[in-house]
Amino acid sequence: MNTQSCITALVCPKCKKCYDHREIQHLCQCGSPLLVEYDLERAAQIVDPGALKNRSATLWRYQELLPVLDDRNILSLGEGFTPLTPLLSIAKKYALGKWYMKDEGIIPTGTFKARGAAVGVSKAKELGVRDVAMPTNGNAGAAWAVYAARAGISAHILMPEDAPRITRNESVAAGAQVHLVRGLISDCGKILARSIPAHGWYDVSTLKEPYRIEGKKTMGYEIAEQLDWQVPDVIAYPTGGGVGIIGIYKALQEMRCLGWIGDKLPRLVAVQAEGCAPIVEAYQKKAKESELFPYAQTIAFGINVPKALGDFLILEAVYQTEGCAVAVSEKEIIDALLELASLEGAFVCPEGAAGLAGLKKLRDADWLKAGETAVLLNTGAGIKYPDTLQFDLPYCPVDGTI
Amino acid sequence: MNTQSCITALVCPKCKKCYDHREIQHLCQCGSPLLVEYDLERAAQIVDPGALKNRSATLWRYQELLPVLDDRNILSLGEGFTPLTPLLSIAKKYALGKWYMKDEGIIPTGTFKARGAAVGVSKAKELGVRDVAMPTNGNAGAAWAVYAARAGISAHILMPEDAPRITRNESVAAGAQVHLVRGLISDCGKILARSIPAHGWYDVSTLKEPYRIEGKKTMGYEIAEQLDWQVPDVIAYPTGGGVGIIGIYKALQEMRCLGWIGDKLPRLVAVQAEGCAPIVEAYQKKAKESELFPYAQTIAFGINVPKALGDFLILEAVYQTEGCAVAVSEKEIIDALLELASLEGAFVCPEGAAGLAGLKKLRDADWLKAGETAVLLNTGAGIKYPDTLQFDLPYCPVDGTI
Repeated sequence: MNTQSCITALVCPKCKKCYDHREIQHLCQCGSPLLVEYDLERAAQIVDPGALKNRSATLWRYQELLPVLDDRNILSLGEGFTPLTPLLSIAKKYALGKWYMKDEGIIPTGTFKARGAAVGVSKAKELGVRDVAMPTNGNAGAAWAVYAARAGISAHILMPEDAPRITRNESVAAGAQVHLVRGLISDCGKILARSIPAHGWYDVSTLKEPYRIEGKKTMGYEIAEQLDWQVPDVIAYPTGGGVGIIGIYKALQEMRCLGWIGDKLPRLVAVQAEGCAPIVEAYQKKAKESELFPYAQTIAFGINVPKALGDFLILEAVYQTEGCAVAVSEKEIIDALLELASLEGAFVCPEGAAGLAGLKKLRDADWLKAGETAVLLNTGAGIKYPDTLQFDLPYCPVDGTI
Repeated sequence: MNTQSCITALVCPKCKKCYDHREIQHLCQCGSPLLVEYDLERAAQIVDPGALKNRSATLWRYQELLPVLDDRNILSLGEGFTPLTPLLSIAKKYALGKWYMKDEGIIPTGTFKARGAAVGVSKAKELGVRDVAMPTNGNAGAAWAVYAARAGISAHILMPEDAPRITRNESVAAGAQVHLVRGLISDCGKILARSIPAHGWYDVSTLKEPYRIEGKKTMGYEIAEQLDWQVPDVIAYPTGGGVGIIGIYKALQEMRCLGWIGDKLPRLVAVQAEGCAPIVEAYQKKAKESELFPYAQTIAFGINVPKALGDFLILEAVYQTEGCAVAVSEKEIIDALLELASLEGAFVCPEGAAGLAGLKKLRDADWLKAGETAVLLNTGAGIKYPDTLQFDLPYCPVDGTI
């Protein structure tokens, strides 16, 4: 069955060259990632945003704005329409406005990587792909592995040996071919680039195929819909490769064209760790691209990306929305993580905690005003990070009392 | 604001004695757990099941059939309305009918314990409780700890030292007082029973307060609603303490009274591990209660319960629906886990895998007929169980290719 997708083409955001979406595409000839374009006039005619509430509680509710043409290619494990949880106690402590957490821990595989993988693998299936291949620090690999399994597509994954063990197990259980590397994700990427020509695999490294971003953008649609099409004043995003913030910005622009939201966009905030803050440095210099951040290190390993392929798109999203970029310390991350757990009952990943730490810093500096509405993206479940916290606990003897 | 809850009383299923729901209650004087009763005639008048689709995608959509009276007491992290995922490849391999997995991994804390905790803590808050206390093998403790944190209620938790470390971290991060014990959960329970009188804490051990089951029963409502009020032929439930299967049976009876489903109920199947199968033994003897299962052991530690307090209710649910109880081996559990991951992309906990292993066995025996519709409950996310699988993986040299 036809999905009513309004996809029209793939377009290079740098040199504006167009590509056919009915064929396999990767980067533009100029080296830039490609973005998906839609016939938004047609989408505005066929979709009434108020009627979306009768659709399934997954990201596929926005199928007109997604690239899959035939719904038999849709691979769904129930991903998307994650909770937008009010942070009542924290908002009371730091602000007078409404603060929310978009909780991407409540999704298959426990991280927001499921969105990009669900849409990316579904479209790969539609394009007749038999093998996907990627380097990963763990979570993305696991997400692509499970959706590839559901599609009957083979997955070839390169992972640093110190990537979290649970993501190895997820990937291997799903039948992926996983190779460990005594090195960094960048080393994995180089091995993959050397290996792909001999096999003809479909390279699904970050932003090297155009559809992962389409999955991620649905976070932006959901935030707007869950706030009844009133966008918040600020959205804070823990930023590594930045596909999420690029996707949310793309969704905001699309929704404005569709007439689903007004002209005013939320200020987008890229939150990074002080130990890996290339976007923050670029922002401070008002630069359009970032420079490689040397000796990058942070406990929030999901945002430990020293130079993002889409850095220019991240910075454009920040500048165009009058947002900003802010760096937080390791201690601020842990403090925020404990605060979210003990005040709100939300046990988040360190990247999500960094987002809250960023909001707190911006509130302290009065960049975020009292009374303003803010949304924090938590990109994954804390349960996927067993080693972030270390506690010494008391023992009670078997014949004792507490 | 009033929730429209139709709660009327607490009733003992053994001796039929009634208790006031506006006061704190635990077990009946006769020792049995108490069940919540509702004015179902009134609920049938005020709720149109077809109109539920406009409500929030959480378990609170069934608020008329839940015990909380004032919605300001509702503590929500977005729990419930979890995916009902079609198992297309597995159904094709083993049956001609439709098989589904209700995926309780896609919920706050990553396990179905969140349902009982969300409703249990919300009602505890409504009753003015300041401190909750419980023994736990990990997941339930973590769930109650995070909801207690959101409520501003103190949680006191006793956990065997070999309970999964991630559940310790979750509980402590949420501010719970956690004590480790060099013993079993039964030892933790005894310590707690000795400790409670001195403190006056609210005992939230399994079935010792009446509201956890109300949270769990919403799985039954959701299955019926997600299948458009056509119940499946069979529901397979991995059974330890059995609150889930008791809750689903209660939901089925309520929905039949409400007129939301027809007279025919699904056959409820209690799936246990061969290493801990007290309900299966009782079922084979046609007994009304189970006997303590000696030397219980299984990798599916969530169903390692040698004698459940609600065993008579589990067996009643099985007998009354013409269901059955079936035991599966450790190897069958692992095989089913790998099958779900590699064929469906669903990385589940060993308990959920046991449920599939049970269905396969019943299909082999033709107890489950070709063409029959079956729902398997996966009670938690595989990512919460980092040690269930062990794989040896190949290394690729940094200067190599794959």
